[in-house]
Amino acid sequence: MGQGDVPDIVVGRLPIYLRALKRLQADGHEITSSHELSRRLGISSAQIRKDLSHFGEFGKQGTGYHISALSNALEGILHVDREWHVALVGVGDLGRALAHYGGFVDRGFRISLLFDSDPAKIGQKIGDLTIRSLDDLAQSITENGIKMAMIATPAGAAQEVANHLVAAGVRSILSYAPIVLSIPDEVHVQYIDPVIHLQKMAFYLD
Amino acid sequence: MGQGDVPDIVVGRLPIYLRALKRLQADGHEITSSHELSRRLGISSAQIRKDLSHFGEFGKQGTGYHISALSNALEGILHVDREWHVALVGVGDLGRALAHYGGFVDRGFRISLLFDSDPAKIGQKIGDLTIRSLDDLAQSITENGIKMAMIATPAGAAQEVANHLVAAGVRSILSYAPIVLSIPDEVHVQYIDPVIHLQKMAFYLD
Repeated sequence: MGQGDVPDIVVGRLPIYLRALKRLQADGHEITSSHELSRRLGISSAQIRKDLSHFGEFGKQGTGYHISALSNALEGILHVDREWHVALVGVGDLGRALAHYGGFVDRGFRISLLFDSDPAKIGQKIGDLTIRSLDDLAQSITENGIKMAMIATPAGAAQEVANHLVAAGVRSILSYAPIVLSIPDEVHVQYIDPVIHLQKMAFYLD
Repeated sequence: MGQGDVPDIVVGRLPIYLRALKRLQADGHEITSSHELSRRLGISSAQIRKDLSHFGEFGKQGTGYHISALSNALEGILHVDREWHVALVGVGDLGRALAHYGGFVDRGFRISLLFDSDPAKIGQKIGDLTIRSLDDLAQSITENGIKMAMIATPAGAAQEVANHLVAAGVRSILSYAPIVLSIPDEVHVQYIDPVIHLQKMAFYLD
């Protein structure tokens, strides 16, 4: 089935299913059901079955899902049965925390290039990686065939960084900068801004 | 209008409108329109007008929105025309980056309590704040009347932390732990997990 045939909102739930399956597996489970996943995730079991049915037949009525088989299938569908190299631009407090975060590698992603504009940071190492100058961004990304990047710069720098990333061949951007980026349609962009979440929840507080 | 009358998805867009308005204001603009907001945000102008119409009459046909008036109105609607004190649990790399982040205060939130379970961290200071023991969580949160919290602990610790937060009176939780929390219906919870975003985008890469 082509990528265009699956609603974006369904695609967005697959990583949540995969994460839950990995956790069940880590806890020693071998079999699960749409009902157990529903209980854990707060998504209806009918929705879960319908989402998965876009990609084939998983599990059987009455016996449920083999966790490892479904987990492997979802990794294949999401293309995280391989390792994606990711460029990280902006090595302030947040960028440094992302560079140290151990949770990317076993879920399909490895930060393998770090960039910053601050001359004082360029040349510094974080783990095995050396912080590079933004001037080297285009060449490094092209040479390494990098398709994914994270932006952890201040808002004011993010659009220019995004322009350079896209020009260098990046096709997926996760941005922590609190600004909506202007990006060509064929490039995917997702945003993380904690204040957006806090403000949404404040609405419901008196 | 009661909070229950506005669809959750509409509420979720209000902080995005507010952020765009603040940015326009910082850039020296005084007036904007649903069309300009649409162009900046990638949300249709009809959707923007419909979302805002839940809360009253803003702007006029042909003259657009006064940015400061609409911005003030949205701050009132979202209850961020005041300062919410936020507890942060888990002061690892990410927690430390959040504690240092300067972008909360001018958008309605101040991290005012820090907690960690690591005896080596308890008593350390980050800026003006001292990292407290989890043993003090219930009392500190109750005494300070804290209603909002962020969880930046490992996945394995997050549910127990959430239970303590809810028991102490917290009603909104933003969790960075990669796990779905089991939380009473009356408590709002939002999640940030960068890998979920990266996996969703990997689906669209070959």
